[in-house]
Amino acid sequence: MNTQVAIIGAGPSGLLLGQLLHLAGIDTVIVERQTPEYVLGRIRAGVLEQGTVDLLREAGVAARMDREGLVHEGVELLVKGRRQRLDLKALTGGKTVMVYGQTEVTRDLMQARAQSGAPIIYGAANVQPHDIDGERPYLTFEQDGRQQRLDCDYIAGCDGFHGVARQSIPPGVLKTFERVYPFGWLGLLADTPPVNHELIYAHHARGFVLCSQRSQTRSRYYLQVPLQERVEDWSDNRFWDELKARLPQEVAARLVTGPALEKSIAPLRSQVVEPMQHGRLFLVGDAAHIVPPTGAKGLNLAASDVNYLYRILVKVYRQGRTDLLAQYSPMALRRVWKGERFSWFMTRLLHDFGEHQDAWDSKMQEADRDYYLGSAAGLANIAENYVGLPFEVVE
Amino acid sequence: MNTQVAIIGAGPSGLLLGQLLHLAGIDTVIVERQTPEYVLGRIRAGVLEQGTVDLLREAGVAARMDREGLVHEGVELLVKGRRQRLDLKALTGGKTVMVYGQTEVTRDLMQARAQSGAPIIYGAANVQPHDIDGERPYLTFEQDGRQQRLDCDYIAGCDGFHGVARQSIPPGVLKTFERVYPFGWLGLLADTPPVNHELIYAHHARGFVLCSQRSQTRSRYYLQVPLQERVEDWSDNRFWDELKARLPQEVAARLVTGPALEKSIAPLRSQVVEPMQHGRLFLVGDAAHIVPPTGAKGLNLAASDVNYLYRILVKVYRQGRTDLLAQYSPMALRRVWKGERFSWFMTRLLHDFGEHQDAWDSKMQEADRDYYLGSAAGLANIAENYVGLPFEVVE
Repeated sequence: MNTQVAIIGAGPSGLLLGQLLHLAGIDTVIVERQTPEYVLGRIRAGVLEQGTVDLLREAGVAARMDREGLVHEGVELLVKGRRQRLDLKALTGGKTVMVYGQTEVTRDLMQARAQSGAPIIYGAANVQPHDIDGERPYLTFEQDGRQQRLDCDYIAGCDGFHGVARQSIPPGVLKTFERVYPFGWLGLLADTPPVNHELIYAHHARGFVLCSQRSQTRSRYYLQVPLQERVEDWSDNRFWDELKARLPQEVAARLVTGPALEKSIAPLRSQVVEPMQHGRLFLVGDAAHIVPPTGAKGLNLAASDVNYLYRILVKVYRQGRTDLLAQYSPMALRRVWKGERFSWFMTRLLHDFGEHQDAWDSKMQEADRDYYLGSAAGLANIAENYVGLPFEVVE
Repeated sequence: MNTQVAIIGAGPSGLLLGQLLHLAGIDTVIVERQTPEYVLGRIRAGVLEQGTVDLLREAGVAARMDREGLVHEGVELLVKGRRQRLDLKALTGGKTVMVYGQTEVTRDLMQARAQSGAPIIYGAANVQPHDIDGERPYLTFEQDGRQQRLDCDYIAGCDGFHGVARQSIPPGVLKTFERVYPFGWLGLLADTPPVNHELIYAHHARGFVLCSQRSQTRSRYYLQVPLQERVEDWSDNRFWDELKARLPQEVAARLVTGPALEKSIAPLRSQVVEPMQHGRLFLVGDAAHIVPPTGAKGLNLAASDVNYLYRILVKVYRQGRTDLLAQYSPMALRRVWKGERFSWFMTRLLHDFGEHQDAWDSKMQEADRDYYLGSAAGLANIAENYVGLPFEVVE
């Protein structure tokens, strides 16, 4: 087998990159370790930046999102019971976000891939990149017990944080930057109407709360919990009681509870590797960087990487601009670091760090909340990051 | 002796409070340990917020400042050699700062005090507040070897960080919050024209630089230096050479050097005590809080405290509103914490922390610089803090 761009991983980044390259007339083969059902089973983010929405439209996969997704013009920030609406639209000159689950984005992209007829190989075992330093890289993997080889010009590593792409880069090349937070998020998904028409980010003495949603009938709630907490100890009732205790009475009174469709605890972590390219291998999304979920930046930064890699590859194939390949990592990283900064900022702003920080840092955290939420310039600052900073132009 | 408000300390806060109260018909006596010459010899800040300027005008001591002070509509931020002007006026809807040395403010206030005929006692030894918890507090001190007693209604502690006012509050009452930075500022004052018509705040791999000024013929420059540095090791030539090395060539080429009028190293520290009141004793300015000089907030936060205490005392004496006395500390502290936040933010933004922070924090510092200096909302944020956040209304 051979192709122009071999894509490892059929999550939203791999599928979106594949779809955009397909529309540009560039051949791709996507190789995925798991089954489609497994990929769709991963519950992830639900808030798309304006730029991500635009990219999905450019990829021609936005019809259902535009029909069923919920355009949100604001979010609510709630500190010590005081509600402050973040008017995204007014503060950013008209930008908004789209509430549409990552699962749905993936489903739409899978359907587009199937319709395009471009190859996608699920259940590929032992995927391994080779000769990424040379002129003719290739992948090997096992399909139904048979060894396969996929020759290509370039490899896009869209296989997530635990994937093989990053691990196939020789030791000593990558530099890792990391921050681990002393708490996790306990998430619950339920087929209940959201407690509020907009998302609520709440700081509370008992810990952070996010009231999110996937649709007008499906809610997603998160509670900050200590790292050592076990999901088995959280009955649905305990979750709902704790959620109510962290919300103002008038909000808690509106909360509709119901059985959990999914419940899990995720640790919070910031991580970036540099550079995001080695030879002909390009790292995309979670393969190169992880954000804590507080700013809803995970999927959006992956889309940001796809945006740059796609536009560079188009110029490489159409105009012979191979000089641009070396621009992928610095361009992608400039925006990644700003997204990491915002996620770290929002995490610090809204969580309770308990004894994990000293009295001075707690006071600065409180002063940050007072300042940013009490000032138009401070709110504008949060808003422009939340809807997503602009992309640089590839030229 | 007796008075209505006894003021400890004849620095700018004590003098400004005395002047404002005098104009309102409230009697004060100012007691100062040092001589007027000593007080005037202290080289301090040179940038006045809009609100401080307005308060000096309200105090009737602004004639020379308005004649000789330099209104600055912007400052320059310089990171990795890239110059970004912070257009204060445009970003804040018309606000500016006034460049006018603290020494000059103090001189104008001293003259106003002398003209008012209100008492000011210099060279007072062993000043000691008494019965601050009771109805009739008083000060004792020695004047020309004679023991004196000053009875009063209230005591304002304007005697700085090392003063007796804070120390006279019983142990266990005050809570202290503190951050010490791993570097200091080496400052040099010279009668040379400033290198730039606006202030330059520069981040450089060799360390932070501030190019400040006191007038069109007097410059003040600062270099970040390690804490263990000794001023004796810094000849004027060494200072000027290091300053040039940290500035872009086109700026360094314009630098006019000259003999130092003053040269000293100051450590950088953030500190706040809470509350700022105990009984009938009120802490004002440095007596309650210290900021690193990076945001030029020291004198301005002192003026902020004076603003609140003055307006409260006027309502106490004119309208019997003794209920407002308990509002001084929370009102003053809300603004103090925002000023501390900004000073801490600017210090982190622009200094080199070397091995005193981990790789993640260094990356976040760099991302903060990229974001805040590259975004209109980020710049607006810095600008509104630099010109000074609004005062709350005392009512």
